[in-house]
Amino acid sequence: MTKSRYKALVCAECETSFDTNQLQSFCPNCKQPLVAIYDLRNPPLKFTDFSWSRDSMWYYREFLPILDEKNIITLGEGLTKIISLSKISKRLDLKHEFFMKDEGTNPTGSFKARGMSAAISKARELGVWHCCTPTAGNAGSALAAYCAKADMQSSIFMPQLTPEMFRFDCELMGARVVKVDGSIRDAGLEMQKQNLEMKAWDVSTMKEPFRLEGKKTMGYEIAAQFNYQLPDYIFYPTGGGTGLIGIWKAFEEMQEMGWLDEISTRMVAVQMTGCAPVVEAFEARADVSKGVEDPAPTAANGLRVPKAFGDKMILKAIYKSKGFAISVQENEMLAALNRTAREEGLFLSPEGAALIAAVEKCLSNGVIEKESRILIINTGTGYKYAENLW
Amino acid sequence: MTKSRYKALVCAECETSFDTNQLQSFCPNCKQPLVAIYDLRNPPLKFTDFSWSRDSMWYYREFLPILDEKNIITLGEGLTKIISLSKISKRLDLKHEFFMKDEGTNPTGSFKARGMSAAISKARELGVWHCCTPTAGNAGSALAAYCAKADMQSSIFMPQLTPEMFRFDCELMGARVVKVDGSIRDAGLEMQKQNLEMKAWDVSTMKEPFRLEGKKTMGYEIAAQFNYQLPDYIFYPTGGGTGLIGIWKAFEEMQEMGWLDEISTRMVAVQMTGCAPVVEAFEARADVSKGVEDPAPTAANGLRVPKAFGDKMILKAIYKSKGFAISVQENEMLAALNRTAREEGLFLSPEGAALIAAVEKCLSNGVIEKESRILIINTGTGYKYAENLW
Repeated sequence: MTKSRYKALVCAECETSFDTNQLQSFCPNCKQPLVAIYDLRNPPLKFTDFSWSRDSMWYYREFLPILDEKNIITLGEGLTKIISLSKISKRLDLKHEFFMKDEGTNPTGSFKARGMSAAISKARELGVWHCCTPTAGNAGSALAAYCAKADMQSSIFMPQLTPEMFRFDCELMGARVVKVDGSIRDAGLEMQKQNLEMKAWDVSTMKEPFRLEGKKTMGYEIAAQFNYQLPDYIFYPTGGGTGLIGIWKAFEEMQEMGWLDEISTRMVAVQMTGCAPVVEAFEARADVSKGVEDPAPTAANGLRVPKAFGDKMILKAIYKSKGFAISVQENEMLAALNRTAREEGLFLSPEGAALIAAVEKCLSNGVIEKESRILIINTGTGYKYAENLW
Repeated sequence: MTKSRYKALVCAECETSFDTNQLQSFCPNCKQPLVAIYDLRNPPLKFTDFSWSRDSMWYYREFLPILDEKNIITLGEGLTKIISLSKISKRLDLKHEFFMKDEGTNPTGSFKARGMSAAISKARELGVWHCCTPTAGNAGSALAAYCAKADMQSSIFMPQLTPEMFRFDCELMGARVVKVDGSIRDAGLEMQKQNLEMKAWDVSTMKEPFRLEGKKTMGYEIAAQFNYQLPDYIFYPTGGGTGLIGIWKAFEEMQEMGWLDEISTRMVAVQMTGCAPVVEAFEARADVSKGVEDPAPTAANGLRVPKAFGDKMILKAIYKSKGFAISVQENEMLAALNRTAREEGLFLSPEGAALIAAVEKCLSNGVIEKESRILIINTGTGYKYAENLW
């Protein structure tokens, strides 16, 4: 049995330590996320003998915060494939393969499964019986599914504009769903109000420390899938930003263990022009985003996040990696979604399609080079969004 | 580079050989499917070093019929996970884990991707530029996707009652979709009529020999995932039956190579009471089905096949394996779908949910024992069916 190397939980800002045996949310002083720290001394040899029959991201349990394996709630999340977008690569005259990691094959159809598998496993370890979250859709589906498996209640708050599929999915898993006028920010406010009585464990993005840990496993997998020679660019659709922060955290942990000599990847955050707080902050070289007052509706509902709670950490990963942030327009994203289906036979999520549009834009204006090794992360399956597209 | 061991194509009935360098459909004399034969002398050691970074069922290309690797059209199909249905197992008082292989994580959300990857690769190898098929939905989605990647045209004929999702999906990939009144049989008749002028390559279930080969890879994977100690029962939702026949074919090939000492698995075909031609034939111990005149509509649209073209081969696999066929009612299937979501956090396809209902029925009436190691194959994701369920 592999033991977890989890040892501490500290504020990302002031580095204060918090008791790991208690439920912890975010730092009450800094209002910043808490980050799990591991004892990475005497690290194992870097993992190379990957087997899909091992069946989940818990292959990396040593670097995840669950102390007793019997608390692990898994639906087979993670260990997702990397696909070669050969025809787009050819059309764009790229000199290397154009890689896509397909997170749409996770349980409940998105990368959110990784985060919730970790968060709900830890919640079980700490005695929680009821969880709640605001969601643009996929986080709700994942919460509902993992709570069902864990015999926990779940209460989910989503914007009115969320596709009906997500409501159906959550309710099918036994969750209580509340639809709220406005954006995910408004859904969060309504949840906080109701939670005064409901007293559920709030697993909102980055206000709960362990969803980040689950999503981090994407970074471990990417390194292994690239034989520890990281791609030059990773394009990530950035709403709450946990995926991007998580991948970066994994790279730093692997560097600390000597699995990576250097982190040569530039992290690229992609947003929609109608809601691009991180892009605005990046362009001003700010270390925090101002937030967007009135986020425009988009089919990429996961990107309609007016201000990410973890925005400082997103920007930090971008700056440290010498990456950047870029926005695309709705029509560019939709054109990319359609074109990718006809060229590659893949029905991407709108968030994933935004990445294709962003790569094309960056190549055409010379921000990135045709010689680059580029990886995009398709965060979800397109099927859950179809009703908004047909 | 691994060479394909493909050597001959013979009629399943009269064993006549057909030219492997030409497009072949079915035996013109027997009206029975053609079956690919491999040279299995000097077999390799059994495969155990499975790596998910190898990324697709083409890991088994030695046992697939593509002669030149550059013709392989892949979207990352296969190498799907096996999940433990721990709570259902406990409720049913099973003495072993209750296993589910989740084919819903394939490209286009179903096991049909495996068959189309093989069929379209071979069609490319033989110079085809336009394919057609009748479909209950998922085969159409898969055909459209692989044709898109292969730069081929596709024409797809589906019953009016098929969920809108499937039409949308196919058209998104650039396919021409025709909706036809009636069942998949009527869709097939309309296609044959139009194909007199269209002259597309007909990849209908079992009338094209290589979809079977792609689906066969499920059997190879299952054997490896069970460390070559096969489960006691495999429950398979049986419409056209290619999946069940394919798994059995893989087991026989592995036995021929000495990878399996014996084939200890009983194959169980599951159908809906409103359209159960294989169950009727099995109960009469017939070697061919009569077919169903008026198949009842069902949310499990993949099971609404009034008479499978490969029915003799389905029944042969059932008899040889000492298996059986069983039908479940619509309300039993729907109850199982809902219950599995709430218990296990999994949104099964209706066809997959029918298997849960069938296992429960077999346990309660004593047809199978609580000591059995049972594997079910969830053939697709539930998300594509959601509009018919909410």
